[in-house]
Amino acid sequence: MDWLGKVNWGEDGLVPAIAQEASTKRVLTLAWMNRESLARTAATGEAHYWSRSRGRLWRKGEQSGHVQRVLEIRLDCDEDVVLLSVEQAGGIACHTGRHSCFFQKLENERWVTVEPVLRDPKEIYGR
Amino acid sequence: MDWLGKVNWGEDGLVPAIAQEASTKRVLTLAWMNRESLARTAATGEAHYWSRSRGRLWRKGEQSGHVQRVLEIRLDCDEDVVLLSVEQAGGIACHTGRHSCFFQKLENERWVTVEPVLRDPKEIYGR
Repeated sequence: MDWLGKVNWGEDGLVPAIAQEASTKRVLTLAWMNRESLARTAATGEAHYWSRSRGRLWRKGEQSGHVQRVLEIRLDCDEDVVLLSVEQAGGIACHTGRHSCFFQKLENERWVTVEPVLRDPKEIYGR
Repeated sequence: MDWLGKVNWGEDGLVPAIAQEASTKRVLTLAWMNRESLARTAATGEAHYWSRSRGRLWRKGEQSGHVQRVLEIRLDCDEDVVLLSVEQAGGIACHTGRHSCFFQKLENERWVTVEPVLRDPKEIYGR
């Protein structure tokens, strides 16, 4: 598919993908995509990423149920960053049980946690 | 500074940094930061990035005047992605003269340009 070829995949075959919540416009997370994950995301309407730590394709929410329904896919000017507009199932994008992964805020040269855990990760993932 | 040490810099010493416009919540751009660019961003309140193509520190807007005033700096759960909340001078973040770098939208397996050029890049950067 030609549209996949237009993406400037990195040397490792990946590009960063930002997930932004459609309703709140909050930036939820940044994950990585390879060609297959972007193709599956477009085909299924659900966010698929490439897990660098596990070295495998990963359907967001496959374990947690916190899937991301994708409303829109955008590409940046350099064609090396993807932006997804999503609906976040369960209102939890982060593996820590928080709404967004960006819960640490810089205040006076310290990172301060400014968002609550909405659900205990032990409940989400089991023990 | 300890807060800089908490960031999980990549093997190349960089992390992705997302700039989100405070007023509109639009994601404007993704650029890269090294330790020095994040330190300068925090110290000056203006976004500084690391230009991978030019191999040097880069104060956003140094040529174009389209500086980004930084209102908030966040870090994600894995401590390897930065999120900036910014005011975008001139309302133009993209070197193509558009508001946001994410102006290409996937429609029916094609990337379609869905945002206008607000100012000719030749005017912004000179010839």
